[in-house]
Amino acid sequence: MDTAQAKQQITSSLFFSGLPEKDISDFLLESACRNYAKHEEIIRHGQKADRLFIVASGWIKLYRQAKTGDEAVMHMCTKGDVFGEAAVMAKGSYSFSAQAAEKASVIEIPSSFIHEKIKENPAIMERMLKTMSREMQQIQSENEHLSLMSASQRVGCLLLQLSSGMIGKGGTFPFPYDKALAASRLGMKPETFSRALAQLKPIDVQVSGPEIKIGNFEKLMEYCCHQCSSMPGECQRQDKSG
Amino acid sequence: MDTAQAKQQITSSLFFSGLPEKDISDFLLESACRNYAKHEEIIRHGQKADRLFIVASGWIKLYRQAKTGDEAVMHMCTKGDVFGEAAVMAKGSYSFSAQAAEKASVIEIPSSFIHEKIKENPAIMERMLKTMSREMQQIQSENEHLSLMSASQRVGCLLLQLSSGMIGKGGTFPFPYDKALAASRLGMKPETFSRALAQLKPIDVQVSGPEIKIGNFEKLMEYCCHQCSSMPGECQRQDKSG
Repeated sequence: MDTAQAKQQITSSLFFSGLPEKDISDFLLESACRNYAKHEEIIRHGQKADRLFIVASGWIKLYRQAKTGDEAVMHMCTKGDVFGEAAVMAKGSYSFSAQAAEKASVIEIPSSFIHEKIKENPAIMERMLKTMSREMQQIQSENEHLSLMSASQRVGCLLLQLSSGMIGKGGTFPFPYDKALAASRLGMKPETFSRALAQLKPIDVQVSGPEIKIGNFEKLMEYCCHQCSSMPGECQRQDKSG
Repeated sequence: MDTAQAKQQITSSLFFSGLPEKDISDFLLESACRNYAKHEEIIRHGQKADRLFIVASGWIKLYRQAKTGDEAVMHMCTKGDVFGEAAVMAKGSYSFSAQAAEKASVIEIPSSFIHEKIKENPAIMERMLKTMSREMQQIQSENEHLSLMSASQRVGCLLLQLSSGMIGKGGTFPFPYDKALAASRLGMKPETFSRALAQLKPIDVQVSGPEIKIGNFEKLMEYCCHQCSSMPGECQRQDKSG
């Protein structure tokens, strides 16, 4: 991905949209757009936070690895998503590792420059805080799902998230990354994930290879969302259909 | 609890320790110390964040409630803990409810005053960010535990957290709140919690009514912590014994 494309990605990211053109240009001048190969490491848990990341394309896996080698996937980031902001803001260390789940492009802004810009324009600080606050809400919500939802409700919720840009009564989309990764993302074994996916058939969710067909978004939401406490503004899907 | 006691609590809280005396006095002047009865509501999920909270005594349950009424306990806060800071900083809404799990005293500082003080002293903003960042790490770590740890490892980890102030090879302490609440805090049914607790017997953890005796902290850490990715600075217990 070249610089012009990267700029377009930056301006359309929720994080930067609405900032003065001058600030965006400054960020672009100081940032680098890096391309990562599948499975390439981006940052490692515990590393000093020297950069903020905005995903321009592809999927990035944020994860933590126990001493046994077992991995817990914290989040899958894609186009427009920001990561590393909590550590950058606190001038601390990253609390997770990041790896490209597939070929990906990432815009990287040095922490030092962010702190410089914050001094100039307090609106940037507010944006960082809002992003952090939103991310915290998302983690809390996932934590809640792990406690309260059944495996098939959690898989249904993931499908709703993945299809959150789609308009209409229902729709078909290819699964954007490995199903094994999705299982890990939901804290499940791959076989539990497959079983849970199969259990969604009566709710009009059809699987054919990598392709997922949701017959009726509302019906799937009915099945999943009553077991969730998210309020308007806390869930992408809810916001769009509400 | 009276104002003098409250002041002492504020100054010993990690959040305020080291701030200039003048700032602490200002915060104290603007804050209220409120006493809550067992089960009294403090804030409700979705409510506009008008106050920051510092626990002076007792235990506070932070939780989210699905539309079905099922509760997921996010965190149990006690003396010195801060809550509500993410929502206050983002000028948003609380992303959880809070209720006194037992009689509790809480120091409450109006959001508007915090934002006023931040303008005066940027060090306060840095403190808020560090607290938020630490909290985010804790939630991520819990999320990881829910994915990777066995029930008995998670119970062991909770016991290590609860005993983190204790010095020596081992120690005895009363369980500080309902075991049913602890189960809920770990996303378990009460019977799973009891079973998991019993499984810790061979690791020298004895239970007698509300009393817990950990024979050997190191041994319990060996049992739990290899299945965790926390680094120094991310886990209270680790910091103390490391």
